Amino acid sequence: METFYDCIPCFIRQAVDAVRLATHDARIQEEVLRGVLRAASEMDLQKSPPVMAQQIHRLIRRLSSCDDPYKELKDRFNRYALDLYPELRQRIDNASNPLETAVRFAIAGNIIDFGVSNKLDRIDLSKTIEQALPEPLFGEIEELYYAIALAKKILYLGDNAGEIVFDRLLIEELPADKITFVVKGSPIINDATMADARATGMTDVVNVIDNGSDAPGTIIEECSDTLKQLFTDADLIIAKGQGNYETLTDVNKNIFFILKAKCPVIAKHLGCEVGSFVVRQALRDT
Amino acid sequence: METFYDCIPCFIRQAVDAVRLATHDARIQEEVLRGVLRAASEMDLQKSPPVMAQQIHRLIRRLSSCDDPYKELKDRFNRYALDLYPELRQRIDNASNPLETAVRFAIAGNIIDFGVSNKLDRIDLSKTIEQALPEPLFGEIEELYYAIALAKKILYLGDNAGEIVFDRLLIEELPADKITFVVKGSPIINDATMADARATGMTDVVNVIDNGSDAPGTIIEECSDTLKQLFTDADLIIAKGQGNYETLTDVNKNIFFILKAKCPVIAKHLGCEVGSFVVRQALRDT
Repeated sequence: METFYDCIPCFIRQAVDAVRLATHDARIQEEVLRGVLRAASEMDLQKSPPVMAQQIHRLIRRLSSCDDPYKELKDRFNRYALDLYPELRQRIDNASNPLETAVRFAIAGNIIDFGVSNKLDRIDLSKTIEQALPEPLFGEIEELYYAIALAKKILYLGDNAGEIVFDRLLIEELPADKITFVVKGSPIINDATMADARATGMTDVVNVIDNGSDAPGTIIEECSDTLKQLFTDADLIIAKGQGNYETLTDVNKNIFFILKAKCPVIAKHLGCEVGSFVVRQALRDT
Repeated sequence: METFYDCIPCFIRQAVDAVRLATHDARIQEEVLRGVLRAASEMDLQKSPPVMAQQIHRLIRRLSSCDDPYKELKDRFNRYALDLYPELRQRIDNASNPLETAVRFAIAGNIIDFGVSNKLDRIDLSKTIEQALPEPLFGEIEELYYAIALAKKILYLGDNAGEIVFDRLLIEELPADKITFVVKGSPIINDATMADARATGMTDVVNVIDNGSDAPGTIIEECSDTLKQLFTDADLIIAKGQGNYETLTDVNKNIFFILKAKCPVIAKHLGCEVGSFVVRQALRDT
């Protein structure tokens, strides 16, 4: 997906949020923001938004000397989600359709996205979980069931810390031996890394690898060779969140995007309302 | 008031809105946005937000060759407000406190601010008018009554097109012979100019001058000599809207700011909630 004009103010807002987390030094904050604006003035709008976000957050980390501005938020939302795990596990187990319930909770967990807003708190998360069951699902969930039944090698591209606990709930409903779960290679916004996969027990449930990249999405060309090979070999890819949608929507593979459409640009691109719960099968060349 | 970090994404969002109104040529749109980002990377954060907005909108008008991107919106909201005028006039006339009712409607009219959002429609305006009467007023309205009763020369600094009809309703409750109403010297966002004052009948009610400036606020140093003199001579200044608050809050005069606090930065600076109806007396050196 290309970058739309409406993404630009959002990049700058994201930079303001991040620089406040990265440093309290006003001189450095200002230097970073000026650098981000200059970089944004030269960005390639043909590239997807995570390409620009990657550049911006590299700049923030470098100039602020803080290699993980969202560390405390990631840890906090891992804990919040782990607190919720036993109750959600039970609700899935007791559901008339456990797989659909798990998909719905996995979408709810996608609200934990500090790229979209840094105002999120525990109450917003609880509200979104309660919204998960009655909410209509936009897209192709039946096709996802079918694809899972047929798949031999599933690559599950994770998204954020905290959210990873909701992915675990879903993966526990899937044939875990066929799945590789993917985290980011190093910190970028609040995206899950291997540390989050360990802290939330994901590594006990399924094979987890990191993708070798610090993009808030999956830019295949710059991922590790291992990830590239797994991506090529997989017959089903489950891609969580907006960043993966933005970076993979033009890739010709059997991909299902699972996300909450949190911004107007994504919602318009998908053809749904902001806030929708989405399971979208990628269009493929035949 | 200085420019806060949170103003920066808002400038960029405003530029995206404006460039879409100014031209449909994608090449020019992109050139303008890159120019705005470059200019923003060099801005002086010690200056008030309207100083930067003035630069940005000059750039947009110059590069797009459109000298009034908001013309159609200004005309439309003048018409909407004039449609409402007879009913609002009657409600003020029938009110137990006509002056307070007129102040409340004048604040409601301040919702017509395309610097804050370009999503505003007629329904939002109607909702804000209905909110105007029950809404608690934040600030010092009693002191305003007292200041009006004492004043010999009142300078009323207007804000936006459409909103100017609501200012007219208030001015009709005041000693009009003591008042000069001020519009902008040339188009800037949807701020009212002399054309709007004529179209809405303001010129029939009170003496109207333009301030000779294209800033979305009142930067005294760059206004016309006439405005400067009137500003010096006035014993009461009524300043409408966020832009006038931002540019005049550090000026040592008898100023009352009348506005709806529409953004988090202004609300925090005032010490009120976003959405508040505000009559704020300026702090003065004694």
